[in-house]
Amino acid sequence: MLDLLNQHRTVRKYTDQSIAPELLHQLLEAACRASNTGNMQAYSIIVTTDKELKKELAPAHFNQPMIIQAPVVLTFCADFNRFTKWCEQRQAEPGYDNFQLFMVSAIDAIIAAQTFCIAAESVGLGICYLGTTTYNAREIIDILKLPKLVVPVTTITVGYPADSPEQTDRLPLNAVVHYETYNGFSPADIDKLYSEKENSDFYKQFVKENKKETLAQVFTDIRYSRKNNEFFSEKFLNVLKEKGFLK
Amino acid sequence: MLDLLNQHRTVRKYTDQSIAPELLHQLLEAACRASNTGNMQAYSIIVTTDKELKKELAPAHFNQPMIIQAPVVLTFCADFNRFTKWCEQRQAEPGYDNFQLFMVSAIDAIIAAQTFCIAAESVGLGICYLGTTTYNAREIIDILKLPKLVVPVTTITVGYPADSPEQTDRLPLNAVVHYETYNGFSPADIDKLYSEKENSDFYKQFVKENKKETLAQVFTDIRYSRKNNEFFSEKFLNVLKEKGFLK
Repeated sequence: MLDLLNQHRTVRKYTDQSIAPELLHQLLEAACRASNTGNMQAYSIIVTTDKELKKELAPAHFNQPMIIQAPVVLTFCADFNRFTKWCEQRQAEPGYDNFQLFMVSAIDAIIAAQTFCIAAESVGLGICYLGTTTYNAREIIDILKLPKLVVPVTTITVGYPADSPEQTDRLPLNAVVHYETYNGFSPADIDKLYSEKENSDFYKQFVKENKKETLAQVFTDIRYSRKNNEFFSEKFLNVLKEKGFLK
Repeated sequence: MLDLLNQHRTVRKYTDQSIAPELLHQLLEAACRASNTGNMQAYSIIVTTDKELKKELAPAHFNQPMIIQAPVVLTFCADFNRFTKWCEQRQAEPGYDNFQLFMVSAIDAIIAAQTFCIAAESVGLGICYLGTTTYNAREIIDILKLPKLVVPVTTITVGYPADSPEQTDRLPLNAVVHYETYNGFSPADIDKLYSEKENSDFYKQFVKENKKETLAQVFTDIRYSRKNNEFFSEKFLNVLKEKGFLK
């Protein structure tokens, strides 16, 4: 089991083999057994296999080819719509149209998503997370016809792996794990934590290809620029307002 | 593996047995192998085992006894502090002080948290999520000394199970899973999806004990009231502003 988790790699290329509906059902059931807040199950999973619909979704994911190529695309959503409807039908006054309950349901959606991924990997499938979901939630909402109090928070493409990609590197564990209280890193600590990454041939080549001086500049200038981050922040906050999770 | 996921139950009572540091290290390593956005690893995990510190944390989790009783408490945080420091030391101008990047790092923190939980369960440990983390992030920040751009998003207590609690119920899968596009539920659909839950002796007793007419009222009037939800929404939004993730 730990072996399976330690073998994790993101799979972006899939064979033509479809996923048997019974298997998909089993994986989804396992995902829904995961922990969730107050057992409200305030999330939903949209399963997209239709080719036309996948084509419509592709631009919202910046046309990453996995969307079209994967047999199954899953969009995980924070969802207080169903629960609110139930309350309204039971003489109960719902008050879930606020940011705290968005966080509750977003967290539960992600817990289900990662449980699905591990379940899928355990039966030989490969997965890829698409972080573009919170960037272009607006467009995804229209395509998947998501109602009030439903906001997509992540997307997973899933299928049988067509190749076995190399594992990506990880920082030393002490970059991420702190004991008892937060360990403020000194400049020398930071140098040490990032030195293996920065000195690898892979990243040296990556910096060169991107025509930058440092690896960090690839992130700040190209991949996650302030301008883009701020643009997509405003866009997502507007989605939360529009769907009723923020006043 | 699917069996393990299908056997999941929240464990709130633990034996006195501590978790061997090597085992904890292995579980944390497996958690950090999970997918994350752009391989930035923009999250952190605070491991609390110190009794005094657990006592300090307890009120922030509304004194749920697991905090004191569990040998290990893990607080998972959205964290762009380390990455920002690294960028600043590498002639790169970071722009992660915004809501979109908070979402990115919160999602990655939760993916790591759930991977940790599954890893822990696979070696016989039991876990419990504490949703109180986003309610009282303010207090947790002070106790764990979390700096700018670090916000706790969930907490897990972990230890060897002292009992084997019953599994909680789940709604039928079609309450959560939608095919192709979102399936708007009719009032009759809602009645059907919730009928098994509402007709169970367990929930009938629960409604009675809470002196309410319907199960939904226990949620709206007691467990997740509008007043509380709105109070904790404002509190958490203020934390995001204070820690630099929202302008």
